[in-house]
Amino acid sequence: MSKERLVVAVCGATGAVGREMLNTLEQREFPAAEVIPFASARSAGNKVPFMGGELTVRELTEESFRGVDIALFSAGGSTSEKFAPHAVQAGCVVVDNSSAWRMDERCPLVVPEVNAHALAAHNGIIANPNCSTIQMVVALKPLHDAARITRVVVSTYQAVSGTGQKAIDELEKQVRQMFNMQEPDVAVYPHRIAFNCLPQIDVFMDNDYTKEEMKMVLETVKIMEDPSVKVTATCVRVPVFYGHSESVNIETERKLSAKEARAILAQAPGVRVYDNPAQKMYPMPTDAAGEDDTFVGRIREDETIANGLNMWIVSDNIRKGAALNAVQIAEALVERDLLRVRDPQLFLR
Amino acid sequence: MSKERLVVAVCGATGAVGREMLNTLEQREFPAAEVIPFASARSAGNKVPFMGGELTVRELTEESFRGVDIALFSAGGSTSEKFAPHAVQAGCVVVDNSSAWRMDERCPLVVPEVNAHALAAHNGIIANPNCSTIQMVVALKPLHDAARITRVVVSTYQAVSGTGQKAIDELEKQVRQMFNMQEPDVAVYPHRIAFNCLPQIDVFMDNDYTKEEMKMVLETVKIMEDPSVKVTATCVRVPVFYGHSESVNIETERKLSAKEARAILAQAPGVRVYDNPAQKMYPMPTDAAGEDDTFVGRIREDETIANGLNMWIVSDNIRKGAALNAVQIAEALVERDLLRVRDPQLFLR
Repeated sequence: MSKERLVVAVCGATGAVGREMLNTLEQREFPAAEVIPFASARSAGNKVPFMGGELTVRELTEESFRGVDIALFSAGGSTSEKFAPHAVQAGCVVVDNSSAWRMDERCPLVVPEVNAHALAAHNGIIANPNCSTIQMVVALKPLHDAARITRVVVSTYQAVSGTGQKAIDELEKQVRQMFNMQEPDVAVYPHRIAFNCLPQIDVFMDNDYTKEEMKMVLETVKIMEDPSVKVTATCVRVPVFYGHSESVNIETERKLSAKEARAILAQAPGVRVYDNPAQKMYPMPTDAAGEDDTFVGRIREDETIANGLNMWIVSDNIRKGAALNAVQIAEALVERDLLRVRDPQLFLR
Repeated sequence: MSKERLVVAVCGATGAVGREMLNTLEQREFPAAEVIPFASARSAGNKVPFMGGELTVRELTEESFRGVDIALFSAGGSTSEKFAPHAVQAGCVVVDNSSAWRMDERCPLVVPEVNAHALAAHNGIIANPNCSTIQMVVALKPLHDAARITRVVVSTYQAVSGTGQKAIDELEKQVRQMFNMQEPDVAVYPHRIAFNCLPQIDVFMDNDYTKEEMKMVLETVKIMEDPSVKVTATCVRVPVFYGHSESVNIETERKLSAKEARAILAQAPGVRVYDNPAQKMYPMPTDAAGEDDTFVGRIREDETIANGLNMWIVSDNIRKGAALNAVQIAEALVERDLLRVRDPQLFLR
């Protein structure tokens, strides 16, 4: 039941990611007959820009999905948990950007460059991975295929846009306040983010890792479909608006020289090798913001172990880390003729 | 020849670290009869604040050191290379904050909490380690003593003040320009630092590591006096004014639980354990700025290896990372009666 012109819902359309989803659907000329923006009652009636005009935001309800073919959700975990099952019941396929369904065995967790094949088994809800996981696996999967990665030590440098528009506003406000000799207001994060580093993203778990760190550990294994890839992560928020950076150390079964790794990554889909120290060329958030590719540089051998590599991975957390990856999943569903729901009641039982 | 009242020179007294050296000498009531600020001819005649009054900056020349007992240098590598040998020739002991003498076998490289004993063998020049190395070894040495560290994977989040006053000014100026819709001027760093991350600190070496990264590798071994400690580093500049942060992953010979590590660090000199996830308490640059201690938190076991730990180490890069450590070395020299030069011609031959 591949369709030329689909009805697409964007749920959470007024948020930073929702707006970028609309933008991405437009830029990539997604075959949509109609795009309907949904949000909470509070935002209903607002306008969002689309295709040179404006769309009026509707209130998201359990009845919103009649006649909708595909829904892109980016409205938080509790909204996804509540509404995605009703979307599926209405025969609508959901691509969900929250963490609600990611580790659910019934839901594929997909980065199209890495495991698009997993879409074939979907049951109506496909989960979009965490932003910091997506860009890491885009870069690591081709190296894993070539040399088998056994261990990953990653430290992140994550932009405030990952938290949403309110965090973008908070960083800007705090900077203005500090430059006007005022005490900065702290509301979105537990501590000031302006000119600071916060080694906490999301809540703490029982093992003293944050939920964000555990997402990187668990989602990587699910997407790479290989429990032998062991990941340990430290996730840190930095005062950057757009673009997550990651310092990634890997250990591989087979030796991979920096030159080999560069050559493999140069051929990898979704990756741009940006690695020329002599020209002071390396990935930075300022380069990646607004771009689709995941940038990889600072590739060099780690001499402390036999088969080690260090690298620096940067991507636009709102695009590849969220909106773009969700739209790519939607495109893959259309291409592979997978816009179908096998069991409409599955997530309501 | 321990002296109660010494003549102390501060070379590079108008820079960010030089000013903090003066500040630290004052705060710690260093037993100085006289403190003389030196700088280049360009800065001579300027005033610097000291003990409620002001000192007049003098031009640094080869003849500046007659009658000076101890000189604290923070005026860049080439100035140290040129003038430190003349200081020693005049019988003055030098504590040098540049990288010029750090790997010289004739010069101890000292963090007083870690290897103050190495001062006994000095020949007139004692090197102050790199800022990012100092705070790391303060935290790692007690863990090494307890469990033998075999491997360290570190990623840094370094403040602009490490580059000096001109970089502090540049970050501030770029932020103001961007908030006024102007194109930010880029002068000190190769790329914009405002709301960005730069994975380059100091110049690139032949192995594609930066000099800063290799400092962390080589200086750690020299200070810890153990070539079996293998370090691999990724050094990154972030838009923070004061306070370097480090995400540090260690592997040890003997298993160390997070709880044991916390208990060991709680007893360690110069370390403050700041680790209570339930209270959202962890080290941040905003806490460390202006403090003497190195803050350690986010201590947790790394399950990807048998004996692994992750931690997050933050310190004021201008204080413990530079000025304070240099003054602590000077204090140890006085306490241990080591203000003597054995061979005045050594560094001139």
